[in-house]
Amino acid sequence: MALIVQKYGGTSVGTTERIVSVADKVIQAKMQGNDVVVVVSAMSGETNRLIELASEISAQPAAREMDVLVSTGEQVTIALLTMALNARGCPAISYTGSQVRILTDSMHSKARIKEIDGTRISRDLSSGRVVVVAGFQGMDGNGNITTLGRGGSDTSAVAIAAALKANECQIYTDVDGVYTTDPRVEPRARRLERITFEEMLEMASLGSKVLQIRAVEFAGKYNVPLRVLSSFTEGEGTLITYEEDGVEEARIAGIAFNRDEAKLTVLGVPDHPGAAHQILGPIGEANIEVDMIIQNVGRDGTTDFTFTVHRNDVQRAVEVLNKVANDLGAREVNSDDSIIKLSLVGVGMRSHAGIASNMFEILAKEGINIKMISTSEIKISVVIDEKYLELGVRALHDGFGLEKTA
Amino acid sequence: MALIVQKYGGTSVGTTERIVSVADKVIQAKMQGNDVVVVVSAMSGETNRLIELASEISAQPAAREMDVLVSTGEQVTIALLTMALNARGCPAISYTGSQVRILTDSMHSKARIKEIDGTRISRDLSSGRVVVVAGFQGMDGNGNITTLGRGGSDTSAVAIAAALKANECQIYTDVDGVYTTDPRVEPRARRLERITFEEMLEMASLGSKVLQIRAVEFAGKYNVPLRVLSSFTEGEGTLITYEEDGVEEARIAGIAFNRDEAKLTVLGVPDHPGAAHQILGPIGEANIEVDMIIQNVGRDGTTDFTFTVHRNDVQRAVEVLNKVANDLGAREVNSDDSIIKLSLVGVGMRSHAGIASNMFEILAKEGINIKMISTSEIKISVVIDEKYLELGVRALHDGFGLEKTA
Repeated sequence: MALIVQKYGGTSVGTTERIVSVADKVIQAKMQGNDVVVVVSAMSGETNRLIELASEISAQPAAREMDVLVSTGEQVTIALLTMALNARGCPAISYTGSQVRILTDSMHSKARIKEIDGTRISRDLSSGRVVVVAGFQGMDGNGNITTLGRGGSDTSAVAIAAALKANECQIYTDVDGVYTTDPRVEPRARRLERITFEEMLEMASLGSKVLQIRAVEFAGKYNVPLRVLSSFTEGEGTLITYEEDGVEEARIAGIAFNRDEAKLTVLGVPDHPGAAHQILGPIGEANIEVDMIIQNVGRDGTTDFTFTVHRNDVQRAVEVLNKVANDLGAREVNSDDSIIKLSLVGVGMRSHAGIASNMFEILAKEGINIKMISTSEIKISVVIDEKYLELGVRALHDGFGLEKTA
Repeated sequence: MALIVQKYGGTSVGTTERIVSVADKVIQAKMQGNDVVVVVSAMSGETNRLIELASEISAQPAAREMDVLVSTGEQVTIALLTMALNARGCPAISYTGSQVRILTDSMHSKARIKEIDGTRISRDLSSGRVVVVAGFQGMDGNGNITTLGRGGSDTSAVAIAAALKANECQIYTDVDGVYTTDPRVEPRARRLERITFEEMLEMASLGSKVLQIRAVEFAGKYNVPLRVLSSFTEGEGTLITYEEDGVEEARIAGIAFNRDEAKLTVLGVPDHPGAAHQILGPIGEANIEVDMIIQNVGRDGTTDFTFTVHRNDVQRAVEVLNKVANDLGAREVNSDDSIIKLSLVGVGMRSHAGIASNMFEILAKEGINIKMISTSEIKISVVIDEKYLELGVRALHDGFGLEKTA
């Protein structure tokens, strides 16, 4: 008998009909002989409704009170799902984050889980019950209600799975797994049967948003086998593993892309030690997050410094840089927000050389000019003109044979 | 400096605008130098919305899960009111019933308060905060969320006031106090400045529903001065006291009436010991509540037995009685649901004779026939034809001079 933690997001529990469907799925898992813990989010729309109420009252409500307010969303869902399970003859019991108890730090609205007491859940499971737990929320050491921040229900599920040493943590969502790339861009995109945690982290942070990054990190840290599946269709989904067995070949997991970045360049920076810090220091102070950074080798004693930021921050970044360029005696600042970032992700890169040059060759054949390159152990990212997004993704998907089962 | 517990019901916090008005009232009390604890209900309509969601899922949801569900209603209000207070510069903090902690028994949906730990509230009050507590809810010894049943927020407020030894518990509602009778029936009805707990209990149970009976009982038990006021208009409301000072005169508090009863009579019951029990036993077994009971002295060895029940129970009661009458050899059963009960309430009755005959005389002058009479220490009730309701109330109101200030 296995212990499974299932997590259903807001869309999956968005109406009472859907909650009843979730109950059916839970009972199915129970009937197969498993112990089941279910973690649920607020019904879709509910959190926004509550935030709207708060905004009618205060422009800057205290984070503690926002947590008291929005945590009611999941509390409604746990009660309704438990009723649905009971109505189908399945013994079940609900717990809020405080009741479980999911102990967090006191950082309201973005708390981190410190500890989960699994005693109560284990006792209920032993007595044959399904245990339904409110995701996204916890309690700090002083009994204050905390929330983990939006999407934190994934993290709750993984943390509970870790605490209970569950055999699998299943994240039910509105997609049926992790794909080699976005099927809207490349119709031949294929669902991956498995992906490693590291690949998943790279895929997630690059825009293929299926799971909360923190949840994936958490799962990796505690070796919790994680599976992404659809609430609405049958299927095996994608298993996220921490083992790399059977990926000896030059395996590429997929292609991620990000449309939200813009490129900034400071040209003709006098090439002396500390220039990079003098440029990025003020950017950081302005709370602008930087992604890729490239400093070209200097000619004639100057260097060109290029980096990417979120498109929303371009205006502010340019203002900061104009001042910095002036102080540094740099020649000019320019920005380009008609770019996208394309990334090839795969643990196979570790053991196989030549993947980068292979990638560049494929893009070159299509006449796509590469503006920036950045590499990590299991990822190669390039910045290209945004008009080449579809072409680039399809060429790489085809070039690396991603439509074929590994 | 006084400690005041204020309670605002669902209508008073029915919209975000009204919650802001409540914040203003709370701040007013605080500015007058008082420590203030506020107990709130769910926004009007919210509890029904939640019950409707549950009914879409299950015809008979478990009481434990209903409590988890509906308790979110007050949790939303405490967060919003605290935000409104903060936004006006008033330090405040919210607590759910579990957090306070309001310890109850485990009777879900109709739990009774066993104990309140005032430590946390007292500490917050000392630091200058207004404390906002969710009414209607608590926690049992195992950490399960419980509710006190509809209207239980009044009880929460009184219980907190008792635990903190508050100087006054103010119940804000949509009426501005307790009246000598229903102003819709007698426009000259007058707001009472004070009423005793016992009178209030009689008035409340007889249909002048302003306060939860349990809250009044609780307040009486712990000698908590209780005041009923309007959320929407200024005014002193009605103070409910447990002292009877200054009511030496033949004081009548008011006139209550009840339209919901029906009269049943078993005629020609052979007059032997045990007949009353033989009649009322089966009625009790059928879960029918009996209010007034009268057994007339028998003639020719038989007696007539009359009592009142709720109108909804008449059909069932007649069925039970027909069988009973048959067994007993009684002559006949008849029922009358075109009656009402009229009650004169006042602690002055204790020390003053003649009030009953005075009452009967006033009714007789108007040609109103009395069908049943029942008396208690501070109340005289009569059953009359329902068509005489308005006439009877006005005649008594005038006859006892209730429009004049005591």
